[in-house]
Amino acid sequence: MKVSLILAHPDPRSFNHAIAGRVRATLLATGHDVSSHDLCAEGFDPVMPVAEIPSAAVPPVAIRRQGDEIRAADGIVIVHPNWWGQPPAILTGWIDRVLRPGVAYRFREGDGGEGVPEGLLRARAALVFNTANTSASREADVFLDPLDKIWRNCVFGLCGVRTIHRRTFQIVVTSTPEQRRSWLDEVEATVRRSFPPGA
Amino acid sequence: MKVSLILAHPDPRSFNHAIAGRVRATLLATGHDVSSHDLCAEGFDPVMPVAEIPSAAVPPVAIRRQGDEIRAADGIVIVHPNWWGQPPAILTGWIDRVLRPGVAYRFREGDGGEGVPEGLLRARAALVFNTANTSASREADVFLDPLDKIWRNCVFGLCGVRTIHRRTFQIVVTSTPEQRRSWLDEVEATVRRSFPPGA
Repeated sequence: MKVSLILAHPDPRSFNHAIAGRVRATLLATGHDVSSHDLCAEGFDPVMPVAEIPSAAVPPVAIRRQGDEIRAADGIVIVHPNWWGQPPAILTGWIDRVLRPGVAYRFREGDGGEGVPEGLLRARAALVFNTANTSASREADVFLDPLDKIWRNCVFGLCGVRTIHRRTFQIVVTSTPEQRRSWLDEVEATVRRSFPPGA
Repeated sequence: MKVSLILAHPDPRSFNHAIAGRVRATLLATGHDVSSHDLCAEGFDPVMPVAEIPSAAVPPVAIRRQGDEIRAADGIVIVHPNWWGQPPAILTGWIDRVLRPGVAYRFREGDGGEGVPEGLLRARAALVFNTANTSASREADVFLDPLDKIWRNCVFGLCGVRTIHRRTFQIVVTSTPEQRRSWLDEVEATVRRSFPPGA
């Protein structure tokens, strides 16, 4: 399987980097092809230029290449912290610019852009690993967990990815090394289950 | 009253710009002080550098100035399109970088960062004007409107702004000039009601 791994955290020593590292190592150990992007390390520009707004626009080659990758992926793994109920801006902008019409979804013939698009991603599953310093109950009861709706309904649902597994590791700031080791083992088990060796 | 107006859309000919223009004109006509930021025109950098993550970090002066403005505001108006259930990345990054600990919220003594922060914004009301090319029913029933939760619960709720009025104008792409004129009149009426002259 071809698996795309997208990581958004500015600190290379972050637990997000540890998660992405374990995802990548597990995928390689089980014989999959991995395309990974550490958006902060790559200096991804998240600001959508006005010229890229029209459906027929042709974005720069680096954006088109990421579009080709994500469209060809059999599996997708996203890793980022929950900041204000959203991904960090660098990943919000990756969604804005890379998941374009014609790449991730398309409007049906005769639709002026206001209708229900058809998803174009072929990935059989997407995993979303998040970190947070908010408790699960506060996220669910006070904030109503917008991030879950963003990935599940707005992004992957619209783009045609039916199986979405999301896991938030919390509370990272007060976690022990043992806790984090066990979380990384859980990451590995989830990756192996979602993308079995030889699949 | 001091009112902060934050606009995020890359196209100066967009309906978002028309909304922000009407907000600004109405506020000035009713005698309020307005600080406005057209984030795209100003070239705001939405990518949070690793050095700005610690609570005690001192960000660049331009970020600190925006923090001072938003903290001093008696009213806040946000204008942007709904992209994927989120603001455009440039505004997501404005939230990440400007609404810092010590500016927009603070943790209580002895809290390691995992607790419930206290809001520091003093604005009596925030208005959020959005545009969308999705119907209200599809946004509510299929996407579960994460953007509403982001502004209401995650951002303004956490930062201490109690009164939030959000209005999405939809569907913009198929709207008539008459429809858009009537929407702009509604914007003006909402601004006058929320921030009365002489208040």
